[in-house]
Amino acid sequence: MDCEVRFLPEGKRSTVPEGSTIMFAAIESGVDLSNICSGKGYCGKCIVEVLNGELSPLTDQEKKRIPPEKLAKGYRLACQAHIAGDVVVRVPDQSRAGRQRLVIMGKEPPVTLKQNVEKVYVELVAPTLQDPMADDERLLRALAEKGYGGLKADFIITKELPKVLRKSGWKATVTILGKKEIVNIQAGDTKTQNFGVAVDIGTTKLAVFLVDLTDGNLIFADGMMNPQIRYGEDVISRINFATQGEKELKEIQSTIIGGINELICKGVGETAIDAQDLYELVAVGNTAMHHLFVGMQIKSLGLCPYPAGLGRAYDIKSREMNIAINPSGNVHVLPNLAGFVGADAIADILASRLHEKEKLTLLMDVGTNTEVMLGSRDGIWSCSTASGPAFEGAHIKCGMRAATGAVEKVKITPEFDVTYKTIEDEKARGICGSGIIDAVAEALKSGVIDTSGKFILQGHKRVKGEGAAKEFILIYKDETSTGKEDIVLTQDDVREIQKAKAAMYGGYATLMRKAGFKKDDLNEIVIAGAFGNYIDPSSARTIGMIPEIPLEKVSFLGNTAGSGARMCLKSLDKRREAQEINDKMKYIELAVEPIFEEEYINAMYMPNSRLEEYPETVKGIRGPMNVRRYVRRSV
Amino acid sequence: MDCEVRFLPEGKRSTVPEGSTIMFAAIESGVDLSNICSGKGYCGKCIVEVLNGELSPLTDQEKKRIPPEKLAKGYRLACQAHIAGDVVVRVPDQSRAGRQRLVIMGKEPPVTLKQNVEKVYVELVAPTLQDPMADDERLLRALAEKGYGGLKADFIITKELPKVLRKSGWKATVTILGKKEIVNIQAGDTKTQNFGVAVDIGTTKLAVFLVDLTDGNLIFADGMMNPQIRYGEDVISRINFATQGEKELKEIQSTIIGGINELICKGVGETAIDAQDLYELVAVGNTAMHHLFVGMQIKSLGLCPYPAGLGRAYDIKSREMNIAINPSGNVHVLPNLAGFVGADAIADILASRLHEKEKLTLLMDVGTNTEVMLGSRDGIWSCSTASGPAFEGAHIKCGMRAATGAVEKVKITPEFDVTYKTIEDEKARGICGSGIIDAVAEALKSGVIDTSGKFILQGHKRVKGEGAAKEFILIYKDETSTGKEDIVLTQDDVREIQKAKAAMYGGYATLMRKAGFKKDDLNEIVIAGAFGNYIDPSSARTIGMIPEIPLEKVSFLGNTAGSGARMCLKSLDKRREAQEINDKMKYIELAVEPIFEEEYINAMYMPNSRLEEYPETVKGIRGPMNVRRYVRRSV
Repeated sequence: MDCEVRFLPEGKRSTVPEGSTIMFAAIESGVDLSNICSGKGYCGKCIVEVLNGELSPLTDQEKKRIPPEKLAKGYRLACQAHIAGDVVVRVPDQSRAGRQRLVIMGKEPPVTLKQNVEKVYVELVAPTLQDPMADDERLLRALAEKGYGGLKADFIITKELPKVLRKSGWKATVTILGKKEIVNIQAGDTKTQNFGVAVDIGTTKLAVFLVDLTDGNLIFADGMMNPQIRYGEDVISRINFATQGEKELKEIQSTIIGGINELICKGVGETAIDAQDLYELVAVGNTAMHHLFVGMQIKSLGLCPYPAGLGRAYDIKSREMNIAINPSGNVHVLPNLAGFVGADAIADILASRLHEKEKLTLLMDVGTNTEVMLGSRDGIWSCSTASGPAFEGAHIKCGMRAATGAVEKVKITPEFDVTYKTIEDEKARGICGSGIIDAVAEALKSGVIDTSGKFILQGHKRVKGEGAAKEFILIYKDETSTGKEDIVLTQDDVREIQKAKAAMYGGYATLMRKAGFKKDDLNEIVIAGAFGNYIDPSSARTIGMIPEIPLEKVSFLGNTAGSGARMCLKSLDKRREAQEINDKMKYIELAVEPIFEEEYINAMYMPNSRLEEYPETVKGIRGPMNVRRYVRRSV
Repeated sequence: MDCEVRFLPEGKRSTVPEGSTIMFAAIESGVDLSNICSGKGYCGKCIVEVLNGELSPLTDQEKKRIPPEKLAKGYRLACQAHIAGDVVVRVPDQSRAGRQRLVIMGKEPPVTLKQNVEKVYVELVAPTLQDPMADDERLLRALAEKGYGGLKADFIITKELPKVLRKSGWKATVTILGKKEIVNIQAGDTKTQNFGVAVDIGTTKLAVFLVDLTDGNLIFADGMMNPQIRYGEDVISRINFATQGEKELKEIQSTIIGGINELICKGVGETAIDAQDLYELVAVGNTAMHHLFVGMQIKSLGLCPYPAGLGRAYDIKSREMNIAINPSGNVHVLPNLAGFVGADAIADILASRLHEKEKLTLLMDVGTNTEVMLGSRDGIWSCSTASGPAFEGAHIKCGMRAATGAVEKVKITPEFDVTYKTIEDEKARGICGSGIIDAVAEALKSGVIDTSGKFILQGHKRVKGEGAAKEFILIYKDETSTGKEDIVLTQDDVREIQKAKAAMYGGYATLMRKAGFKKDDLNEIVIAGAFGNYIDPSSARTIGMIPEIPLEKVSFLGNTAGSGARMCLKSLDKRREAQEINDKMKYIELAVEPIFEEEYINAMYMPNSRLEEYPETVKGIRGPMNVRRYVRRSV
């Protein structure tokens, strides 16, 4: 039996089989509802108010995640409650992903054009009875005379050749891909119409760039939330969804392609170019996003030893993927080093020029997984570290994504007064990644917590609760958007941030030791990723998320994955460089690395139990130095 | 409004829009109905008896083509009568194409295997945390170690790679196409499962061969009528249909592919191989059939100067054409020299080894268009000549295809008694090509007609009518299948045969003169084509269809187009040879060749007005030598 679920306030209706979850109905009807843990009931972010209708009994997860007063009012977790009849629910503001602040631009070094797509104008002699040479040979002969020999026309171009040549009066422009394949033939001289697309497929966001391939200029850039988010906000959730079967893999693939096509169409509309003149698309993403885009089987990405299915750079005929560019065009995906260091990391390196640096540089692309790359022109070491979704607001009591009303900056005075700034200066709804890092750093400096992360402030009006439930009120409820609940930093929140930053620092420190570098060798830190752009480097250094070097040596490049994709779109040399970087880069799998365990545990302290690594930072910390150094015996 | 047409005796029903022709309804419902002239009303072969229902008024063509007594009984031409309501018609035996005698086999010289498709068995080391190399690189590395470097996997193989490698326990067989592309990966060792398909797309018939590519053995061969016949029996009719629009082109293309797939499936069933192990299909056909198979725009084939759209050999991914072999497999089509000398002619040359002959040889592939090739290892000249559909039974009063009951051999004694043989020794239904050639040759030798083709026999009981309607009764009606009408040779029939054979000889003689050869240079005649197999060489020589050389120097190779396709399937060297033949062969367009006009007119006499070309033949002719030599002034 089918049941109807009505979502308020938007009034959207979704008809789904009895027994479906409310989350399923929300996904079906496109209702914006947080789904961070992908329906497992862990994150507790999908709370909805049930106004009417029958549902399955409360689950243990619901009893644990929903506050008692809300439970009493009939609130449920959308991912846990199964429908037993027609239902009406209200989606509270806090349960929505909201308008996300999307940073799609990133720094891009100058690139000398060396396109994969060329356009050549030819004038043919029409056939006569004395010269009845076939159309294909006539065209190939003319192209060979212009220096383009050994070509083969794509099948769909070949089929249309007789018609197009005659319609054009034997004067036509031929588009050549990779000096090998004819992918278009157009009447007249259309040499100036040659465009390409660069795509960065982030786990959270999707960015699409249109580039004029005749001069390399960016003519359109836009982004959206990765529409795959409906299948779970983290990579593992999506791998789990995609490995359920062929149908699910196709569904999640066509979801991302649908999003890309939507942005391409928008760009084509705004720039008034012909989508047929988009001949190439270069895509980057982490290995999982890359594989889901291509439609690769990805079960192995989720299983130790996590090898990538597709490691080398790869080219695919665009019509095989239903990409909304010329159907004979080319889709190029950059190489993946490993299951968790993917094409986006290669793009980061290209755009940050890490592989050209004279001195040792740390490059981190901060996200749910943080790719850590350490090196210079002499070689690059890399690893991926599960920094977790805490920076995206998950597992944080008042956490939220970097959307409207999120607290993004926090200061705590020695008197424990708090000042803060929200995104778009709206009333505070919650706290996002950069705000959390600030809050923890400020709590440490002001003595709310000690270097072990433990709450030490006693008897202050901002401090409530006991033990793990202890919390520091950042913003009183009357200042918030709902006016109902304080925005707080809890003991558990601090633990989450400690784990996240320890993972990142642990990755860095492991690479340093594996490669044999010393603290002073490090000359520069480059933070990539849309998220990274908003972090206060001082706070990041205070909590020990990044090593201690002068702040002027820390820079933020923004979405360099997108920059790297554009660079490879414009230049075959950059594609070659990308493959070379991939082939030469060393990968350390932290899961089997005892050094990582040691460094991770030491980095659980703030800034670190190795105080000698942070001589400047420790001077600014008010509370006691509560640290214990850990060295694993077997190392 | 839709109307229903019911066809008797089979009882098939077809619902079609009011105003459709009966022929359209027959095509729609798959009723077997002759359609030689493609609905123009010329051939008069689609006579049906209307039992019930309303139709459009009689057309001029119908009044001309339907005998008065049948007109009176309500017989109509199916292609001319438009439906004005529900109709019931009966399709007489004579209006059906019938069970066609299909010759699909042809002589094939031995070929050294040099396959385009190779299978390689590899055992990979499973990935570990210490060696997490990506699946694609792991596979490519193992293949490179076996000497297969620089490969790229087809997109659909790449996508499945992680699953297949794990399922196979890292022991798999990789199929490599053209030493470049991985087109399959299978668990375990499947090296012995490697098959291919050769296809000969004749205008009339379709032949499909399955070949074991590990040893070159033919494992299945079968044929059927080319299902495109429903769009007209000759090439021009089909070009006309296909050039109506994209829809029609796709329809006629999918019709031939449907036929090929049907035969492939039959072969797969009978041989119990896996269609996934069919990796390559090599197809030949005349230029029009070739282009319709590929789905090429072919309007230009019907317009002077008739250039081919696709001249070079061409490879197409099988899934792009919906061919029922492995979707990553390859479809290879042989080159076409010109609009009317196509891939089938190149295949004929390969199979007949014309390009290796020491002495001058004439190769003719006899059909509605006859390809004439003259040459040796020193070079080949070629032309195509419109020998017309007379040999297929069209434009011949009692003509029919080589189907059950067709008269295929005829002798006329000096007393004008007639002996004959029918196909499958059934009662005579009509006369097919080889029978017509015999009949004309025997009529000439016995003195029924003179060398100009004129009826000269007077006052004999077998001779009826006057002038152009004069006819010689070959078989009295009481001996025929219907018992209703005599089977005759008419004055007009003789004229049709004269035109057909003059076209063929004219082509040969033009090539001889253009190439500068003399009569005695010709050492051998090879007749190819399914039809050619049944011609009596003596009769062909008597009427001057072929030049006079000793009969032991005339051979029939059967369907060499199919043989050539098989050779190219087995050997890349043969494909190279095919392209070389195509590149080197000279083509003479007879339409602009004054010599052809002269030779054609002289060849309208039987054997020829140049009696010195047929010294032996003329001795056997009883009637007077009524010839007049023609020499075009300007030549």
